[in-house]
Amino acid sequence: MKTVILIGALGKMGQAALTGLGNHKVITAGRSGDVDHIVDITNEQSIKDLYEKVGHFDAVVNTVGFCEYASFTEMTETQWMTTIMSKMMGQINLVRIGQEHIAEGGSFTLISGILNVKPIPFAIADATTSGAIDTFVKCVSLELPKSIRINVVNPTVLAEAWDVYGEMMPGFEPVPSALVGKAFERSVDGFITGEVLFVDA
Amino acid sequence: MKTVILIGALGKMGQAALTGLGNHKVITAGRSGDVDHIVDITNEQSIKDLYEKVGHFDAVVNTVGFCEYASFTEMTETQWMTTIMSKMMGQINLVRIGQEHIAEGGSFTLISGILNVKPIPFAIADATTSGAIDTFVKCVSLELPKSIRINVVNPTVLAEAWDVYGEMMPGFEPVPSALVGKAFERSVDGFITGEVLFVDA
Repeated sequence: MKTVILIGALGKMGQAALTGLGNHKVITAGRSGDVDHIVDITNEQSIKDLYEKVGHFDAVVNTVGFCEYASFTEMTETQWMTTIMSKMMGQINLVRIGQEHIAEGGSFTLISGILNVKPIPFAIADATTSGAIDTFVKCVSLELPKSIRINVVNPTVLAEAWDVYGEMMPGFEPVPSALVGKAFERSVDGFITGEVLFVDA
Repeated sequence: MKTVILIGALGKMGQAALTGLGNHKVITAGRSGDVDHIVDITNEQSIKDLYEKVGHFDAVVNTVGFCEYASFTEMTETQWMTTIMSKMMGQINLVRIGQEHIAEGGSFTLISGILNVKPIPFAIADATTSGAIDTFVKCVSLELPKSIRINVVNPTVLAEAWDVYGEMMPGFEPVPSALVGKAFERSVDGFITGEVLFVDA
């Protein structure tokens, strides 16, 4: 049994990840609500505080990354930077700071999203930062210390979120949360590293 | 004959691009030196000023994007952000602001670099932002207005820069600037869009 920090535990993607973490001691974290620890991944100090409060842990599973949505010609630099600071720099900081605290042989599992390989309107910032994170994971896996592994889950839309996103994603087939949970499980419990785990129908 | 703004014209990559732009009127730009216009791509106002001063143009070729190099465990958030603001946000801003000014049917050609597909030590920020730009170009090509095209040249190390970078890139084969120039030419003079033009040996 591993100690796993699950960030964004109360969200739909967090709940999906949770379905794959049944064998472990899960410590929940998020920006608000009924979680074990409050954390804001856009804030370095908040990330440090989380790791220090938890103490020993074997895995970090992140399921959050805020993105702004707008057509490219309308999207402001501020909207770009909000997206970059959360979905991209926030996740990089989780690993950068976390590699000092995580146990030998631990693992990080990040989140991207299918829109970098299946683009749709209004999602250019989401797609671009997903491309950044997929690339980051593939490359940084080669230089992490302490036998730490890292992977990223790149899912299509969840069946449980189809009522919200379905209209902007014509021709997409949602996948059940439990299938996405399998990808998180494969990352946490397997020996793979540097992989983008696509979950698509 | 097209009017082409070449950013980073005095650098080695700018000189490589120039070898492919012989059929055109080239307006040179860069941060300093003997160029037609001074521009800092990390500054929105500087980008706007460049486009307004030039007036009519058919193509933008960017060959600059500053990156910090360090091992992942040593790289600070500040180093990450310096890289992101130049190579990633700077290039996105060139397109975001430029699409309002560029001629109907114009083109943007950005620069990434081979390290996102052939990782090496110390280059995680370079690789990650190259992955972001490659993704950005593929996705944004689908929503640019005015029949504007966009591509990115993703070259390996230039033969002309091998004396500087060769030692950190064991097993890489440099390519001549003239071959990289062909990729810029293919982007500016062709009808392709949304493509990552890899130039590798």
